[in-house]
Amino acid sequence: MGILKPITDNKQPATASAGRNLAVLLEYDGTDFCGYQYQPQVRTIQGELENALKRLFGRPFRVNASGRTDAGVHALGQVAGFILEHDIQVERLPLALNSVLPRDIVVKRAAEAKLSFHPRYSAVGKIYRYCIINRAQPSALLRNYTAFIPYKLDIDAMKRACSHLVGERNFASMMSSGSPVKSTVRNLRRLEVKCRSDGLLIFTAEANGFLYQMVRNIVGTLVDVGRGRLLPEEIPHILEAGDRKAAGPAAPPQGLYLQQVIYPEKIIRWCKDNA
Amino acid sequence: MGILKPITDNKQPATASAGRNLAVLLEYDGTDFCGYQYQPQVRTIQGELENALKRLFGRPFRVNASGRTDAGVHALGQVAGFILEHDIQVERLPLALNSVLPRDIVVKRAAEAKLSFHPRYSAVGKIYRYCIINRAQPSALLRNYTAFIPYKLDIDAMKRACSHLVGERNFASMMSSGSPVKSTVRNLRRLEVKCRSDGLLIFTAEANGFLYQMVRNIVGTLVDVGRGRLLPEEIPHILEAGDRKAAGPAAPPQGLYLQQVIYPEKIIRWCKDNA
Repeated sequence: MGILKPITDNKQPATASAGRNLAVLLEYDGTDFCGYQYQPQVRTIQGELENALKRLFGRPFRVNASGRTDAGVHALGQVAGFILEHDIQVERLPLALNSVLPRDIVVKRAAEAKLSFHPRYSAVGKIYRYCIINRAQPSALLRNYTAFIPYKLDIDAMKRACSHLVGERNFASMMSSGSPVKSTVRNLRRLEVKCRSDGLLIFTAEANGFLYQMVRNIVGTLVDVGRGRLLPEEIPHILEAGDRKAAGPAAPPQGLYLQQVIYPEKIIRWCKDNA
Repeated sequence: MGILKPITDNKQPATASAGRNLAVLLEYDGTDFCGYQYQPQVRTIQGELENALKRLFGRPFRVNASGRTDAGVHALGQVAGFILEHDIQVERLPLALNSVLPRDIVVKRAAEAKLSFHPRYSAVGKIYRYCIINRAQPSALLRNYTAFIPYKLDIDAMKRACSHLVGERNFASMMSSGSPVKSTVRNLRRLEVKCRSDGLLIFTAEANGFLYQMVRNIVGTLVDVGRGRLLPEEIPHILEAGDRKAAGPAAPPQGLYLQQVIYPEKIIRWCKDNA
């Protein structure tokens, strides 16, 4: 177990001699993890996945994902990749890995990818969901899977605020510090709020890429609009300020789900799982 | 904490001198509980609820529920009642109790009930849900909230089997031992299976009352039908046998939800929660 070292992203595509370039589609419950990225001594998705591969194939593995998720954040469609020399049928990988993974990580599908495929650098987009329980009392069953907001929210105002955020914009005001990037411009292709009769609000955000904690900062700002602390028309000024302090607080991690990573059509094809 | 003793059901309706007859509508996540009923040394819903009342009102409480739920079984609509001498507004009870309850139990509503009301003996029906994930790989997020069945199930055969179970029948074959009853006849008013595109099967069962583990035994038997181990037409013979061993195995607890307890119309009215 101590063999695995902190992982730095491998930007090199796999070469033919290095083995097969495989990818797995992951669902995980982020509740009991200190986030995706490997850290010594604590429970991480990457650490558990690398452990499972080592148990199956008898050597240390280095796994790359489409991106990190914070502690408490969930995934229904995280993508992780690794190089494998073994000749196991790709259709059998989900069952094999699930038999050694803890129950809060599940491999849903596996894929044999082109050698040029990289889970992070090949991605052309991502979709996140964020769920809020908006009613007087919280939910016992969804306590780790939603944020809880007991205040009345003006959904129409929040929808108007969404329209000010969609598009190619500088989202510096929506980026938490701690993860330096070359550019803070992203194309937010879609930002929707749906309101269910039982008080569940579901946000969907799709972009070509997201800055650190960008979804949580956007949702926190939208909640400020819903509570009347901000007007929808103030959103453009918040973005122009380019200052994190101009926007609302980050919404808590347990409402956030990495829903899907989008790749160009032919670079990866998920196998039917017929294990 | 050691003051609370094992609870025997109080069949006497409250008298005027004994205080107000209150009821609470409960949601709970059964994962980390040893079931509803109080037992010393272990975590139970009843124990936590009685503790919360004691913390709020400064004296020991005895709480009656509509019935017990087993370890791992969840509730969206359990009803519990107690006598209270305090003059707290009933609308304020949910927030007050939730402020001292653990996060996996939530009081959704409270009600001032007629003195003749008893959560168990006043009930004229109950609705349970049972959820199964039916696909090749399990769900990480729903692992404690569904049963997982990777085998192909014949949903049409299961629906035909349901029609053989609905009605007023002797359900002795569907009762687990350990809870003696006068009669094993129950009126199963409704038994439905719905199949979602993502592989989630949702069973809904409504009856005037349920025998011990009746829903889990019915679902286990329906799964045997779905897998082809039993024919739908064998259900009448299984019921006629009056023998638990004739039916299928009990489905696991984590897929089961107590959805609703049904009372006569005017005996209880849930307050709007305007805390």
